[in-house]
Amino acid sequence: MELIHGGDVAGYELAHGRSPLDFSANLNPFGLPPGVARAARLAVDGAAAYPDPLCRKLRNALADHLGVGAERIVCGNGAADMIFRLMLAVKPAKALLTAPTFAEYENALRCAGAEIMFHALARERGFSPGDDLLDALRPDLDIVCLCQPNNPTGLLIDRDLLLEILRRCERNRTLLLVDECFVPFVDNPEKASLLPLAPEHPGLAILGSFTKLYAMAGLRLGFAVCSDPLLIDALYRAGQTWSVSSVAQAAGCAALSETAYAAESLAALRREREWLRGEFAGMGIRCAGEANYLFFHCDCPGLRDALAGEGILIRDCGNFRGLGRGDYRVAVRLREDNERLILAMRQITSARISGT
Amino acid sequence: MELIHGGDVAGYELAHGRSPLDFSANLNPFGLPPGVARAARLAVDGAAAYPDPLCRKLRNALADHLGVGAERIVCGNGAADMIFRLMLAVKPAKALLTAPTFAEYENALRCAGAEIMFHALARERGFSPGDDLLDALRPDLDIVCLCQPNNPTGLLIDRDLLLEILRRCERNRTLLLVDECFVPFVDNPEKASLLPLAPEHPGLAILGSFTKLYAMAGLRLGFAVCSDPLLIDALYRAGQTWSVSSVAQAAGCAALSETAYAAESLAALRREREWLRGEFAGMGIRCAGEANYLFFHCDCPGLRDALAGEGILIRDCGNFRGLGRGDYRVAVRLREDNERLILAMRQITSARISGT
Repeated sequence: MELIHGGDVAGYELAHGRSPLDFSANLNPFGLPPGVARAARLAVDGAAAYPDPLCRKLRNALADHLGVGAERIVCGNGAADMIFRLMLAVKPAKALLTAPTFAEYENALRCAGAEIMFHALARERGFSPGDDLLDALRPDLDIVCLCQPNNPTGLLIDRDLLLEILRRCERNRTLLLVDECFVPFVDNPEKASLLPLAPEHPGLAILGSFTKLYAMAGLRLGFAVCSDPLLIDALYRAGQTWSVSSVAQAAGCAALSETAYAAESLAALRREREWLRGEFAGMGIRCAGEANYLFFHCDCPGLRDALAGEGILIRDCGNFRGLGRGDYRVAVRLREDNERLILAMRQITSARISGT
Repeated sequence: MELIHGGDVAGYELAHGRSPLDFSANLNPFGLPPGVARAARLAVDGAAAYPDPLCRKLRNALADHLGVGAERIVCGNGAADMIFRLMLAVKPAKALLTAPTFAEYENALRCAGAEIMFHALARERGFSPGDDLLDALRPDLDIVCLCQPNNPTGLLIDRDLLLEILRRCERNRTLLLVDECFVPFVDNPEKASLLPLAPEHPGLAILGSFTKLYAMAGLRLGFAVCSDPLLIDALYRAGQTWSVSSVAQAAGCAALSETAYAAESLAALRREREWLRGEFAGMGIRCAGEANYLFFHCDCPGLRDALAGEGILIRDCGNFRGLGRGDYRVAVRLREDNERLILAMRQITSARISGT
C-alpha cells in the first residue's frame, strides 16, 4: 500500500535508522498526559476480555463533556474509523468534497461506491471556501463533507457561510458532515463549533477526535455526534462490533478530566503558532493556519527530502487533490523543536536560492 | 444498537452491579501473558504518535511465526475488522454462508451490499458440513465463508471435503474465506489449517486472531493471509489507514514469543474441555466442540437467565441463524470456574425438571 499521509515515523526509522522530529502529523507535542498514560496502562490488566461494544462509560463521560446526550454519540477506532463508518452507513450515491481536504473522506467514499464531486477552493483565497461553495450544493447530493478548520490549509469557514450551507443542505435533505477534529486548537472553539446545533439538526453529523488534543494517536479514539437515531443505528452496523479497544476507552475517560493539560497546551500552541508564523514571514514565507498546524508554499525544490536528511519530517502536500509542488504543512511543536525547524529551513532555502 | 454476541461483560456489570464469570466469550482463561501485558504497557509511552499503518514489525514477526511472506499478511483491529475489510474489498454480489455460523460475516456482507445464500447445516450431523455443501457451490458465487472449526457449533470440516471445496471454488473463481481464529485450540492444528496452501492458492484467504489464544480481546488484533496482491491492496483500501493501535502492534509482537504460555494453556484447555464434556454427559447433555468452547442443546427454559442470576454468563445461541431455543455455547475455562458452571447447571436443571 502507498502511504499518502504524514506521520509515518516507522517508515522514517526504517529508512534512516533513527527517529525523526515529526512535523508531518498534527499532534499535541506535550505528549500523552500522565493521567491518560496511567489509565491506559491500567486498562491493559483488563484487556483479556472484549471491550464494551457500546463504550457506555466513555460515551457517558463524553456526553457530560460535550453537553449532548450519550445516545447521540458513537465512538470509533479513531476519527478515521468514523469517516468510513459514516460513508458506509449513508452509502451516498453522490458526495461533495472540497479540494484540497483530508484524503480519508475520498478514500471512504470510494470504498462506499459514491460518485464524488469536487469543489475547487481558490488558492488566492488561501483555499478558504467562499460563497461559490453554495452554488455547488446541488439538490441531488447525499452528503457534503467539510473539514473545519480544513486540513491541510488550516482556515476556518466563515460561520455565516457555514450556517447557510447547513440550511441549504437541510432543504436538499443532504447530510452535512463537519469534521471538527482540529476545532479545539483554534482561538475561539465555541464560536467555530456547530456542536450545540446538533440536537436540533438531525441532518448534521459532527466528527471529533481524542488523537490530536490528547496526543493519543497510537491508541486510536474518535467519535461522531448526530441526532438522527436511524443514522446512529446505521453507524453501529457499518463496521465491526468491537472497534474501540479497552485501552482507548479507559484513556478517553481519563483524558476528559485533563482540563489543565488541555488549557495549558492549547495556550502554548497558540503562542508557538504565532511565533512560527512570524519566523516564516521573516523568511519571506506566508503561512496560513488557525489550528495547530501551518500551511505554506515554498518554491524550494526538494525541501521535504532536505529536511528529512536533517532528521525533520514535514508534510509535502503535493499529493492532495487541488494542491501541488511546493505546498507544505507543518505541525506546531514546542519552541526548541520549532527553532530546529526554522534553522534547518533557513539553511536549506538560502543554500538552494544562492545555489541557483 | 442491539448486542448480538457474547462477552458483554460491561452490560452485565451495569445490570447486576458485579462482574460475571464469563463463559459467553471464547477466550483463553489464563489471561494476558505477563510478557504481552508488559509490552502493551510499555507501548503506551510511544502512543502519542500515529501507529505504523503497515504494521511492519508485527507483520515481519508474524511472517516468521506462520511461515508465509510478510507481503501476504494484512493486520487489522481484531479479526472482525478483517471480515469487514474483506467484504468491502471484494464487494461480492453473491455470497454463501453456512447457517449457523459467526454473525459478523453476515453483518459485513450486508454492509457491503451482498446477496447472501445460506447453506443450512443439519442438526443431526452436529451442524458439521457434509458433501451436500458441494452442491451449494454455484458458479455465480463471489465468496464462500467457512469458519473452521465453526462458531458456535465447534466442529471441524473434514479435510478432504475442505480441499474439494477449495478446488471447486477455484474452478468457479469464487474466493474461499476460511476463518481459522479457533484453529490453535483444536487437537491437531497443523492438520486443520489451510495456511500452508495459501501461497499456491490466490483464491484462498485465511483469517487469524490474537484475541482468543493470547487473551487480548480488549486490545484488538487479527490478521488475514492471502496470496493475491490485488486483494491485499484492496484490503488496505477497504478501511482507514491506522486501524491497528501501537499497543496492539507491540502486544502482538510480544505474543509471538509466548510459546510456553501457548503450549501449556492449550494443553490445559484440551484437558478441561474433555472434563467439561464428561460432566455435561453426566447430566445427560451431549456436547460438541473441538476447540475451546462446547455447544449443547438443553431443554431447560430460562437457563441463560438463571445462570446469569448465579453470576455466570453463557452464550444463548437462539439468535444464530439456523439455531433456536435451547441451543447454548460455553467457553472452556479453568477447573474451578468449570466446576462452578457444572454445579450451577446441575442445580438449575434439576430444579426446573423436578419443578415441571
